[in-house]
Amino acid sequence: MSPRPIILDCDPGQDDAMAILLALASGEEIDLLGITTVAGNVPLELTQTNARKICELAGRTDMPVFAGCSRPILRKLVTAEYVHGKTGLDGTDLPAPTMPLQETHSVDFIVDTVMARPEGAVTLCPIGPLTNVALAMVKRPEIIPRLQEIVLMGGAMAEGNTTPAAEFNIYVDPHAARVVFESGVPITMLGLDVTHQALVTEERLAAIRDLDTPVTNAVVGLLDFFNRYDRERYAIPGAPLHDPCVIAYLLKPELFDGRDCHVAVETESELTMGATLVDWWGLHGKGTTARVINAVDADGFFSLLTERLARL
Amino acid sequence: MSPRPIILDCDPGQDDAMAILLALASGEEIDLLGITTVAGNVPLELTQTNARKICELAGRTDMPVFAGCSRPILRKLVTAEYVHGKTGLDGTDLPAPTMPLQETHSVDFIVDTVMARPEGAVTLCPIGPLTNVALAMVKRPEIIPRLQEIVLMGGAMAEGNTTPAAEFNIYVDPHAARVVFESGVPITMLGLDVTHQALVTEERLAAIRDLDTPVTNAVVGLLDFFNRYDRERYAIPGAPLHDPCVIAYLLKPELFDGRDCHVAVETESELTMGATLVDWWGLHGKGTTARVINAVDADGFFSLLTERLARL
Amino acid sequence: MSPRPIILDCDPGQDDAMAILLALASGEEIDLLGITTVAGNVPLELTQTNARKICELAGRTDMPVFAGCSRPILRKLVTAEYVHGKTGLDGTDLPAPTMPLQETHSVDFIVDTVMARPEGAVTLCPIGPLTNVALAMVKRPEIIPRLQEIVLMGGAMAEGNTTPAAEFNIYVDPHAARVVFESGVPITMLGLDVTHQALVTEERLAAIRDLDTPVTNAVVGLLDFFNRYDRERYAIPGAPLHDPCVIAYLLKPELFDGRDCHVAVETESELTMGATLVDWWGLHGKGTTARVINAVDADGFFSLLTERLARL
Amino acid sequence: MSPRPIILDCDPGQDDAMAILLALASGEEIDLLGITTVAGNVPLELTQTNARKICELAGRTDMPVFAGCSRPILRKLVTAEYVHGKTGLDGTDLPAPTMPLQETHSVDFIVDTVMARPEGAVTLCPIGPLTNVALAMVKRPEIIPRLQEIVLMGGAMAEGNTTPAAEFNIYVDPHAARVVFESGVPITMLGLDVTHQALVTEERLAAIRDLDTPVTNAVVGLLDFFNRYDRERYAIPGAPLHDPCVIAYLLKPELFDGRDCHVAVETESELTMGATLVDWWGLHGKGTTARVINAVDADGFFSLLTERLARL
Repeated sequence: MSPRPIILDCDPGQDDAMAILLALASGEEIDLLGITTVAGNVPLELTQTNARKICELAGRTDMPVFAGCSRPILRKLVTAEYVHGKTGLDGTDLPAPTMPLQETHSVDFIVDTVMARPEGAVTLCPIGPLTNVALAMVKRPEIIPRLQEIVLMGGAMAEGNTTPAAEFNIYVDPHAARVVFESGVPITMLGLDVTHQALVTEERLAAIRDLDTPVTNAVVGLLDFFNRYDRERYAIPGAPLHDPCVIAYLLKPELFDGRDCHVAVETESELTMGATLVDWWGLHGKGTTARVINAVDADGFFSLLTERLARL
Repeated sequence: MSPRPIILDCDPGQDDAMAILLALASGEEIDLLGITTVAGNVPLELTQTNARKICELAGRTDMPVFAGCSRPILRKLVTAEYVHGKTGLDGTDLPAPTMPLQETHSVDFIVDTVMARPEGAVTLCPIGPLTNVALAMVKRPEIIPRLQEIVLMGGAMAEGNTTPAAEFNIYVDPHAARVVFESGVPITMLGLDVTHQALVTEERLAAIRDLDTPVTNAVVGLLDFFNRYDRERYAIPGAPLHDPCVIAYLLKPELFDGRDCHVAVETESELTMGATLVDWWGLHGKGTTARVINAVDADGFFSLLTERLARL
Repeated sequence: MSPRPIILDCDPGQDDAMAILLALASGEEIDLLGITTVAGNVPLELTQTNARKICELAGRTDMPVFAGCSRPILRKLVTAEYVHGKTGLDGTDLPAPTMPLQETHSVDFIVDTVMARPEGAVTLCPIGPLTNVALAMVKRPEIIPRLQEIVLMGGAMAEGNTTPAAEFNIYVDPHAARVVFESGVPITMLGLDVTHQALVTEERLAAIRDLDTPVTNAVVGLLDFFNRYDRERYAIPGAPLHDPCVIAYLLKPELFDGRDCHVAVETESELTMGATLVDWWGLHGKGTTARVINAVDADGFFSLLTERLARL
Repeated sequence: MSPRPIILDCDPGQDDAMAILLALASGEEIDLLGITTVAGNVPLELTQTNARKICELAGRTDMPVFAGCSRPILRKLVTAEYVHGKTGLDGTDLPAPTMPLQETHSVDFIVDTVMARPEGAVTLCPIGPLTNVALAMVKRPEIIPRLQEIVLMGGAMAEGNTTPAAEFNIYVDPHAARVVFESGVPITMLGLDVTHQALVTEERLAAIRDLDTPVTNAVVGLLDFFNRYDRERYAIPGAPLHDPCVIAYLLKPELFDGRDCHVAVETESELTMGATLVDWWGLHGKGTTARVINAVDADGFFSLLTERLARL
């Protein structure tokens, strides 16, 4: 089978970096058409720079990286330096990238790629706020029926991590999230329910550390830093490694479990802004709009990640 | 220590019936001043009748029972016959009550009792929609600083049971719930997070059945019926026995665990109407407004219930 | 024809005082069963005192005056001392009342009166926030089909006077207003659209001043003070004399014009909280819920007022 | 003085057609850089076709016309064929355009033009839903400080024309409107308050009819049709000629009057969705965000329009 063509839309972020590396290390299964960036964990200027730093770390200066929206549709940008540090990649010290940023805007790269490729060919993998994806859909709704699938990191059934109601990616641009969840594109949602099962424990980190390559040494630095906030906040043995769950799901869906549900996004009340209402129990009988993943074989996930990082 | 004076505000309902029986069976610890009823699981005409039926089942025709609000403040009444059956007490066939309904309105009984007793003397135990309690607070705000505590069944951190966002009691009258949660009275909230740990399994039901008294035989009929809906909906081995958790908490708080949190109630968006936003992780740093119970020693709870039912 | 039995629900306020005086002076047409007070223009302690002061000014110490709700249902009380002065009756110096405040709560007086009188006998005339009326409806919905009509001062089609969206009485307790407007009782709404046509010009004030009685001398003091805020705010020749429009409408409906419309009250968005959405042009085709008054023969209104004040 | 460079963003619509013609006829004052179209009065396929038809009617096949967004950001598209007829230009029968539609998307034409021209050089004149303008701002926020001004038709202080709360252009895409009104760009808002003073009376229509040119004969057909809906709906002597007010304001601002106000757009409540909250009286003391036009010399406006139409 030929590798699956995807666009990775991200806001690196240490866990985005892991997702990029996992995708770059999995060329047999994944044809990474480009990396589009958006403001989220840190501002756009940093996310697009960070994406290029990670590509260079993996020796992939050929990978096209695009800058996209520097602000959410309606709300003021909220960032998460309290998690990711000032640069978004705190914990290691990667050199300034020499590979160029593409001139095309992320929104246009998404539109142009989806329109140029055959119907049903492209999968979008957003692991940051959904601003770029939503803008592409509003600007050119013709892309909507041409997408194969959207596999995203975002949302939560249980408690949010930014407000009691909302997970960060959805909270930052809830209007964009609503555009995407109401688009009709098949969606697989990997939210906090699953990512909070994929913790960067000392043992798992040690397995990566043992690889002792330039890439994994940088990874260990990133994950060490990344562990700090969540361990303290939630009193758990390691941070949830949110974003690479999306790539792992593409590679080995058998590691995950979930259910087809109706999902709606709150955009009307400040108190619950950005909540993802997952009708897990079929209470209101509306049709399903997303596959909601709520379980992962965490050891299997980290084995996959470690094995692939070893390839880089 | 003298028994703790409480008012039980309820909408029976099979699980409300268990709460009434548990309170009536615990006169050493609980001084049940009166039972106020409200529309909720079934309409008011049934809830006030059912409360009297249960008192008579327990041989307590002396217990004052009051009728209260027959509708929520703003929203159209939603009832739950799909859970409780047409009468609210389906599963047994109790005779029409002969003890009188009090003439005083539930709201006035609450106001008059709290004003007549010493400051800090009375605890309110609402286990239905909060309409009566909220109306009492708006009509006579002077009761607010005179209440000792409110220990209530309602709300959820995780998925609701009426919509993805909301638990039934709060959903039925979210505006009333917001009045109560914003009142400043110390609140202990026993929501679905804890009650879904207190399941009426066959084994637990068998222990009650073995008592083989007129009261417990009726109880078994009620619980058998009550088990039907939730078992099917949630694929669990028995229904969550929501309401008597409140009385059990008064009797043996050591069976429960929880955390002081800020809790807010959504009233502005239809999608999330009635959600209780529990800031379990202290994300937004507002002060605590409720003790949120999220764990119970379920076997201990059912032992207590069974032991007390045996006394009746 | 026998005089029409009404309950005047008010929050005096200078213009409420005019409404009380106009009603007291019109015993042939109006049977004022009682005056219920509520928090609004100033806190309840002042509104109930002011209502008694005005009754005593008119020599009507026999009129039963009741205290009601001291707070809105959900929102924090907002008052309007910037309009009415610190006492609510700034501009004259009436003695502390000697007539008693009734012990019954306003809500209960409304409920008891409506239930005791024949069906369709009683008209409610709320000229303050609608908290008392809404609470009566929620506590005893049986009053709803027994009311003849509600003739109220509140709301606006055009700009509000408290926010761009909302008029004061509705803004203070929008949830109460929504209860009332959704009750199904026939409603006549006199909002800013009509009251801003009834300005206390110098000429009209002079006509009252010329009467030179103890009552009218106090009235002139009140209206002189009342004129200050609106004249400055709106650059108009006198303040809109809001509240007595309700009583004038009962006395001489031929002075007014309006249209049957659907009216809805906003309670879900802070930005538009308390807006009254009047479908004047029948845009959405829902049924009519209120008669909305938008025109008054202002000279006729002030002639009526002046003539009646002369009787006191 | 050199002509002022503008982009006209529209959804023709008969009154949009008048705005296009007025701009095309005013080359001395206005440098029309391009016409961008959006879905609104009718779907995008029709609005972009209609814009070209009108350019050809005026003999301006050189004018670049762009297609933009075919849907609002979040809401389902609402159109107004009940006003404009099935084609949007009902009332005349213009031939299918032969001039090409530009390949560039409206959003990109706006972005590219504003970025290519000197800072402060370009004025945007949106007379339809604000989807294109908002998307340009979110995609490339760098345009925001480079815009000279936005002069738009939309909104209302008084009653809306689509719901009691909202005017059509804002109602169709309230989220886009909020992006624009919160952008910080100087805005001049010509809403229903002013356009309902600019009625196409028989007398004014006759003055255009008397010109008897191919252009004005088509115009008369369009306006005859356009008059039908509003005359019936509002019982007024002619339809409000909304959109060309924007161009007339650029040409002769002395015909108009208004005030600097804070304007906010409702996006959180369905009941008031798309309302423009104009703080005309400075009630809440927030800074001004728009010049709100509420008066026009209607005869002067129609004289200007007629005089300019005669030039084509």
